[in-house]
Amino acid sequence: MELTAEQLARFERDGLLVLPGLFSPEEIARLRAELPALFAEDHPGNIREQDSAEVRTAMGLHLRNPVFAKLVRHPRLVGPARQLRGAALYVQQVKVNVKAAFEGEQWQWHYDFATHHSEDGVPEPLALNLHVFLDDVTEFNGPLFFIPGSQAYGPAAAHLDTRTTSYPLWVVERDTVSDLVARHGLVSATGPAGTGLIFGDTMVHASPANISPWDRAIFSVILNPVANALTRRQRPDYKHHRDLTPVTPLPDDCLLSAAAAE
Amino acid sequence: MELTAEQLARFERDGLLVLPGLFSPEEIARLRAELPALFAEDHPGNIREQDSAEVRTAMGLHLRNPVFAKLVRHPRLVGPARQLRGAALYVQQVKVNVKAAFEGEQWQWHYDFATHHSEDGVPEPLALNLHVFLDDVTEFNGPLFFIPGSQAYGPAAAHLDTRTTSYPLWVVERDTVSDLVARHGLVSATGPAGTGLIFGDTMVHASPANISPWDRAIFSVILNPVANALTRRQRPDYKHHRDLTPVTPLPDDCLLSAAAAE
Repeated sequence: MELTAEQLARFERDGLLVLPGLFSPEEIARLRAELPALFAEDHPGNIREQDSAEVRTAMGLHLRNPVFAKLVRHPRLVGPARQLRGAALYVQQVKVNVKAAFEGEQWQWHYDFATHHSEDGVPEPLALNLHVFLDDVTEFNGPLFFIPGSQAYGPAAAHLDTRTTSYPLWVVERDTVSDLVARHGLVSATGPAGTGLIFGDTMVHASPANISPWDRAIFSVILNPVANALTRRQRPDYKHHRDLTPVTPLPDDCLLSAAAAE
Repeated sequence: MELTAEQLARFERDGLLVLPGLFSPEEIARLRAELPALFAEDHPGNIREQDSAEVRTAMGLHLRNPVFAKLVRHPRLVGPARQLRGAALYVQQVKVNVKAAFEGEQWQWHYDFATHHSEDGVPEPLALNLHVFLDDVTEFNGPLFFIPGSQAYGPAAAHLDTRTTSYPLWVVERDTVSDLVARHGLVSATGPAGTGLIFGDTMVHASPANISPWDRAIFSVILNPVANALTRRQRPDYKHHRDLTPVTPLPDDCLLSAAAAE
């Protein structure tokens, strides 16, 4: 899996790239089948919503489950990431953001580097966030909203919000969001289950609550150059893994094959 | 202003009707110009959000402002309503739902008749809710979501929710929402400022919070047949007006003319 020149140019310009049909329905079904047992675990990486017992995000999944251990090494994710950021990338964070039907709450306006830099001492905004939609994502069930082009402004003013949701997040000031949206507008990332998505560490994004009766689970792996690794270890391992071993891709059929990731 | 046979059939089938371009940009500007002063009033009809001082809904506007006094008698609203429900309609409720940028909170799944019947003793679900978009309404700033066809099931199980927002609302049970959406899907009502919208008293709808930097104000007038008037007066007048005088339409240019509504 290689990104085309057109896709590379689009990523450079917009700061994000949607990859329709990146994973097949069979592959998505294989991944989804693992979720109920993972969400039921009493694990510190399962963070619940502020207003309900629903899992908001389930973290560290590649260390908790053999199918997700394969997914973080999938060539359709690792290949494009290496093309954009070089061969030596480590697995920084692995999660499913659940956004359950009726219960899933918002993610405020933020860019990932504000957290990575402030909390983990990551030097530069080089990490890539790679998503795989595990449910159909529509205008109704809390899709991600992106400000295309916002990545080009680099780190914007942000502050730690520990109040709005159950997940402490470095969020962008409203005046900055308004200014960036006035210049660049907004796009939403929607598509059927299996859709892929790549965006960088200074891309400003948010997502509204899911008031619909449809779940909206999205898998996310963050890959960061080993040369740009964390320098502080105050957050738990499942929020920023300490294992800096470069990730190596598995065969393209790894999710459906019986072989374990060695 | 008369609805076409095709529009009447669509309203019968779907339970809602979007009317693009119902009001001109000049008319919308005239209405919007009145809002800041109205929202600044210390009036019991100005109900603020749970988590901020922003006005959530401003009610009783035709008794508080001469331009909104004209709007509730506008022939492009009153004409279609009379066509659907007969000539003798009274003004039940008049408001602007503000849904301010960043601050506007959700409206839960509900149909208006649950409140009209339970609180006000309205006998039958005959009231019509007529909307005019005062801002562009997009996928990003908290549009209304409708379950088209849900009106045909009549009153569904509902319960009074006094917790989720600052506005007590009779909301539909989640199982019912899930069932109805599984049968009929969802549609969102979006369009530029000036768009009109009509839906009936058993139409199940909701709207998500507005996390965008764009305001989303929508005007709403509820017209109810005089023969179907309230039988209980426990809610304040601005939530269900007591004046049952049938509304009569003004000239089509009333919003832009200097003449007051006599």
